[in-house]
Amino acid sequence: MRFISYTGPAGNGVGLFTTAGYRGLPVSELGFALRDVIGKGPDAVVEFGARLSEAPLLAPGSFRLLPPIPDPDKILCIGLNYRKHAAESNTPVPEYPVVFSRYHSSLVGADAPLIRPNVSDLLDYEVELAAVIGKSGRNIPVEQALQHVAGYSVFNDASVRDYQVRTQQWFMGKNFDGTGAFGPELVTADELPPGAKGLHLEARVNGRVLQSDNTEDMIFDVATLVHVISEAMTLSPGDVIVTGTPSGVGARQNPPIWLKPGDICEVEIVGIGLLSNPVEQERSEA
Amino acid sequence: MRFISYTGPAGNGVGLFTTAGYRGLPVSELGFALRDVIGKGPDAVVEFGARLSEAPLLAPGSFRLLPPIPDPDKILCIGLNYRKHAAESNTPVPEYPVVFSRYHSSLVGADAPLIRPNVSDLLDYEVELAAVIGKSGRNIPVEQALQHVAGYSVFNDASVRDYQVRTQQWFMGKNFDGTGAFGPELVTADELPPGAKGLHLEARVNGRVLQSDNTEDMIFDVATLVHVISEAMTLSPGDVIVTGTPSGVGARQNPPIWLKPGDICEVEIVGIGLLSNPVEQERSEA
Repeated sequence: MRFISYTGPAGNGVGLFTTAGYRGLPVSELGFALRDVIGKGPDAVVEFGARLSEAPLLAPGSFRLLPPIPDPDKILCIGLNYRKHAAESNTPVPEYPVVFSRYHSSLVGADAPLIRPNVSDLLDYEVELAAVIGKSGRNIPVEQALQHVAGYSVFNDASVRDYQVRTQQWFMGKNFDGTGAFGPELVTADELPPGAKGLHLEARVNGRVLQSDNTEDMIFDVATLVHVISEAMTLSPGDVIVTGTPSGVGARQNPPIWLKPGDICEVEIVGIGLLSNPVEQERSEA
Repeated sequence: MRFISYTGPAGNGVGLFTTAGYRGLPVSELGFALRDVIGKGPDAVVEFGARLSEAPLLAPGSFRLLPPIPDPDKILCIGLNYRKHAAESNTPVPEYPVVFSRYHSSLVGADAPLIRPNVSDLLDYEVELAAVIGKSGRNIPVEQALQHVAGYSVFNDASVRDYQVRTQQWFMGKNFDGTGAFGPELVTADELPPGAKGLHLEARVNGRVLQSDNTEDMIFDVATLVHVISEAMTLSPGDVIVTGTPSGVGARQNPPIWLKPGDICEVEIVGIGLLSNPVEQERSEA
């Protein structure tokens, strides 16, 4: 099943992709959001999907997509998790996952603008597989880890490169408002290979393919990431693990390619979805 | 005014320190939490304080303190923000704030145990001033920055040192469950010097003073931090800026001092409060 979160005339809602189009119900009517459903386990998700499959069709143009989980408690991003990207970044292959974080204040949904800030022109794209936690846990053994993943989506971990490396900590360059594109859909894990392995992923700017790799090439796979992160902290429903980007980021192109207003940035993972966002300049707001 | 968040027989509540003791009302009766109140501005906070000053007394032993904001959207931590601590860490004085993050899954309130994890014995204390955002904003000019701060509290940014430096990103070592002590109270900004400057702060383990400095010695003051962080991201009510620790952390003692089960760790900022936490060993949970 393919779920969306959206906003429309009746406020935020949860929807399901069907052959007739998206069907959905407002959160105000449901009394819960998508993260609450996935926290109840696969049976509840199936039941909820059946309910949504009889919900009203959402008229095209009457709603905007939100990130499938608009407000995760935790967005755990992995750095340097593809061999060729570690190489292009001139860093050794990590022996332990490089984890940093993003707050949901930085998120945008599919088709919403990615925002180039006024303080920097060095906005870069990064296609990534996002794994969404369904089942809470701490100290999760690697062999049980995938049972904690409700589904997968696509993430564009857009980065303001000069702010990312202004200090040793990448946090600032990864948390500008309007730089974390997430969506369009949450695809339940049962529709994909275990750990979403073996899927082609790519990033395109104005149609030009700039990143192209396969999730098989991750250094730390989804099960390992769930295991390792949960050694430190409790993972909760709706938490997102953004699993790192392959080679080909704009900073490493020759000459470098930076996202600029008017560009269309597409990131896609075959079998999961295509996440497209236009780029706009920040409008100053005090 | 000095506000608390707490949990008791009627669930979570919000309370006020009065000369007779804490008075409080449950969130279920109020219909909102402390972060909602501070988001409405200083007048609403005064009005709410007056309401709580006539609320029932909370019987000692009938409630537990929670972090004043139990679930901030963002906890923005500053590294190396005192000159002597930068020196003891063998790093130059930063020219730009070093920002990393902590998720609220790591928080505990006053008197709750700090948890030493099973995977590491290198648990360290860090006394810090916490500034709590009241008014939302982006691109906040430095001269208006303090208008966005609702109040201050005390934070123990306890760190699992080997995990902190296992990769270049400090995130993992700063996000173990039960390592971010926060409280006991949120002290409104009007009760303190502007920016909470000039306040003595110290950390003690089993009564031994190990950190002792003054908030005056911060490299980047609260107003500057609000300004700089808001260049990247929107700050929202309840967001917390944890402003960095002075010299004297356990890792830099000779020999090093690590927190161990049975220790009592106290961090205090004169005029704001004393935050005391016992240390316990993690109990395994799958």
